[in-house]
Amino acid sequence: MKIELQQVLPEEIEKRSFEIIGEELGNRCLNPVEEPVIKRVIHTTADFDYAENLIFSDGAVMKGMEALKKGAVIISDTQMVRAGINKPALEVLGGEALCFIADEDVAAAAKANGTTRATAGIDKAAKLNKPMIFAIGNAPTALVRLYELIREGKMKPELIIGVPVGFVNVVESKELILELKIPFIVAKGRKGGSNVAAAICNAMLYQCRPRA
Amino acid sequence: MKIELQQVLPEEIEKRSFEIIGEELGNRCLNPVEEPVIKRVIHTTADFDYAENLIFSDGAVMKGMEALKKGAVIISDTQMVRAGINKPALEVLGGEALCFIADEDVAAAAKANGTTRATAGIDKAAKLNKPMIFAIGNAPTALVRLYELIREGKMKPELIIGVPVGFVNVVESKELILELKIPFIVAKGRKGGSNVAAAICNAMLYQCRPRA
Repeated sequence: MKIELQQVLPEEIEKRSFEIIGEELGNRCLNPVEEPVIKRVIHTTADFDYAENLIFSDGAVMKGMEALKKGAVIISDTQMVRAGINKPALEVLGGEALCFIADEDVAAAAKANGTTRATAGIDKAAKLNKPMIFAIGNAPTALVRLYELIREGKMKPELIIGVPVGFVNVVESKELILELKIPFIVAKGRKGGSNVAAAICNAMLYQCRPRA
Repeated sequence: MKIELQQVLPEEIEKRSFEIIGEELGNRCLNPVEEPVIKRVIHTTADFDYAENLIFSDGAVMKGMEALKKGAVIISDTQMVRAGINKPALEVLGGEALCFIADEDVAAAAKANGTTRATAGIDKAAKLNKPMIFAIGNAPTALVRLYELIREGKMKPELIIGVPVGFVNVVESKELILELKIPFIVAKGRKGGSNVAAAICNAMLYQCRPRA
């Protein structure tokens, strides 16, 4: 069997990919503000389940973009999410990508309190005095802690991207976020991941670019 | 609706997750050397398609582990893969996680030759005189370049982890790798990703640990 590669210029690959995703989504009706987010997640996973799984609170994408435009920081639960975020696109808006999971004080607090480091990382973030977007791609315990702090009135993030992946408390942690009265983008069910979290951040960042 | 979280100690979450994955895989017959790799990819994606998609050349996992034990470097196509690899587990074996995608010389070579930076990154790796494992989670052009260099006798990696994700030349690039006579682990079809590439590396690294 002869394997034939398509001749596509490097700078055209992403554009062609999004065209294919659009074709395969067919005439499904997507909210035009949410559509670039959904398509970028499918682009990142090749998994069309996300056309169904992603749940947006009212106006979540616009609110996330407004926060980014005023220089919100993006706080992630893993270094992988941080690595996947387009830092130049974020920094040009005055933002920054932070992840506390490997910090020594976070490890010490987690050990002292018998929590995950992800939980301790949220506690550390709660002390920041900045507009914050949380991008949680791995740790349900991070979402649970966000839920607790928000319900206690101790935190008010601009947006929660709640897309941890997995089998223990993942579904439940995302259901908790769906109960909150703050902006969220959640991948219902077990699926998600660091790549999904980063893709959602980037989809919003790319929409913040000034039009040519 | 009351959302009930399971009470699981932080250090037990992964163990419980793998038990659930094992239960849901049921009595499917997996090669015992490949099984930890397959399960870790499912753990990372919550996508049981990988029980079918992952193709291993004969003895690929063992050969990858042997290479790691002799200090092979892992070269990835994205910073996200590199971020996801357990560096302490790799470094204790004498290895290192490398990614050339953001290097200035790679960007310049890509521009001069009209290729992707991923292609130019493989050319840079080809000059290393070390045992190498490639972990490709994003760029089909990286796999195509590996295929070309290997067919031309210019490179002989210990293992190729070929799991790019996407829509343009992704399926075809992976089919090319399946034709090679060197060890490979490939996710057939469109699915894959940086998270999958890192999970495969980590599954092998964790099996290299001395038994307690």
